[in-house]
Amino acid sequence: MDFPLSDYLKDRKALVDAALDEALPGEANYPPVIFQAVRYSLLAGGKRLRPILCLAAAEAVGGDYRAVLPVACALEMIHTYSLIHDDLPAMDDDDLRRGRPTSHKVFGEAVAILAGDALLTEAFAQMSAADRMPRIPPDRILRAVHDIARAAGFWGMVGGQVMDIQSETAAADEETLLYIHTRKTGAMIGASVRAGAILVGAQTGEIEALAAYGRHVGLAFQIADDILNVEGDRMALGKGTGSDAVRGKLTFPQLMGLDASRIRMVDLIARALEAIRGFGPNAEPLRAIARYVAERKM
Amino acid sequence: MDFPLSDYLKDRKALVDAALDEALPGEANYPPVIFQAVRYSLLAGGKRLRPILCLAAAEAVGGDYRAVLPVACALEMIHTYSLIHDDLPAMDDDDLRRGRPTSHKVFGEAVAILAGDALLTEAFAQMSAADRMPRIPPDRILRAVHDIARAAGFWGMVGGQVMDIQSETAAADEETLLYIHTRKTGAMIGASVRAGAILVGAQTGEIEALAAYGRHVGLAFQIADDILNVEGDRMALGKGTGSDAVRGKLTFPQLMGLDASRIRMVDLIARALEAIRGFGPNAEPLRAIARYVAERKM
Repeated sequence: MDFPLSDYLKDRKALVDAALDEALPGEANYPPVIFQAVRYSLLAGGKRLRPILCLAAAEAVGGDYRAVLPVACALEMIHTYSLIHDDLPAMDDDDLRRGRPTSHKVFGEAVAILAGDALLTEAFAQMSAADRMPRIPPDRILRAVHDIARAAGFWGMVGGQVMDIQSETAAADEETLLYIHTRKTGAMIGASVRAGAILVGAQTGEIEALAAYGRHVGLAFQIADDILNVEGDRMALGKGTGSDAVRGKLTFPQLMGLDASRIRMVDLIARALEAIRGFGPNAEPLRAIARYVAERKM
Repeated sequence: MDFPLSDYLKDRKALVDAALDEALPGEANYPPVIFQAVRYSLLAGGKRLRPILCLAAAEAVGGDYRAVLPVACALEMIHTYSLIHDDLPAMDDDDLRRGRPTSHKVFGEAVAILAGDALLTEAFAQMSAADRMPRIPPDRILRAVHDIARAAGFWGMVGGQVMDIQSETAAADEETLLYIHTRKTGAMIGASVRAGAILVGAQTGEIEALAAYGRHVGLAFQIADDILNVEGDRMALGKGTGSDAVRGKLTFPQLMGLDASRIRMVDLIARALEAIRGFGPNAEPLRAIARYVAERKM
């Protein structure tokens, strides 16, 4: 395995960070607090996994990854809005995120709710800016927007979050846990991969293969996150470890133990790699990312 | 003036209500509470002003109003999400909406936040469902989606709500009040009218005239709402009257008195009618709606 993933991730993250900074209005705009709040959360330095997967999927089917950058940025806006709302006192009531005080701790609850609303809305403004994607036919853009909206709403991420909240007081079972993980995290990771492929004109078979890759990687990523929550160190995650257990949150390690969780994760990564076996060298970044997730480094 | 507005509004409202009911998944879906919550707020029987304006604008430029129904429904979903979030304890902390307990009173704060998020997201899923608008070219749909997203986000409705929250503790001045009203209510009313026209292929001049109509009617509608809040009766509005004053909220009557507010509103309606003077009989519904707002009945 020679693929220089570390350089690749660094390069793509820099590209996404610059595009996000440029996409967001400055703090001198009116009313300043909303622009301060959205910039505070969006430019807090995440891994940019979803945008990078979107770019890598476009690349994997021979497309120009730069052409899908506005949609990649929108995916990160949707992810960030979900973190802001998840952290609210009425939800997970978290004080820290990525090592910094959460939005409502800095700006108050009302502005935090509105910052999330603004980011979700702006994501769709970015995705529908046809003049910024001149080489992509409008029908493809619409198809990607629709796919992403479905993955983000009650059938996907929001539905998963609803179940996650309810599961804290419910009895643990694998079906519920799978439901939560596949929707809360998996749906948007899958949509990120699909969107990149759809936008550059991938064939149906390619999109289906990438969708399977996205499903498996998405679930593996969440199991890795569960495992890290148990055994990771506080510095690496920027939030308290063991916090899921304290909260009585349903996780894979809690349900089946650490060893079985690791086996499950590795199996999912194998399936993700199998799904894109027919792809050429352009899919190396996707393969390397999947392996990286299995090493629980992402 | 012979236009049978009452019948027209009744007919269009029935059309929109049926389409909204059909667009939303039933409460038997999983997890039930999120579908219960979105249906509770969306099907609570509003006036459907924004969807009706969208349909009427399509009609005004000679288009088929039925063709734009998915977008009209999406506008009501965005409006309803904004009401759910505005009512939250961290925002206006309202217990009643349209004469019924607010979403967070019935479902709790977490589900209310998520129901708003789900409605905003589903609005974009509806708007981007190209197969449901087979006669509208994708580039027009994208343009309408972009226009609506801009009107709903930090440049529009969300920005206005941020200012509204901050103004409760700030000194009253007309510039701030105009800022709030033109963005919090006016932006989405304007976008509703523009979207209807854009989707059916209106000319640039027609879209500009309708945008002006929308701006004036939107601001007049908000002044009418301010006036009703002072003098209206509790039954008609389904919420406590005088509540703005109790809350120290900035309003037109408070700033310039009731008489001057009425004069301002009537002037705005006159300008709205002037903006669409060149339109033919197809614009009668828009004209009748503007006059209806001036009578503070809508």
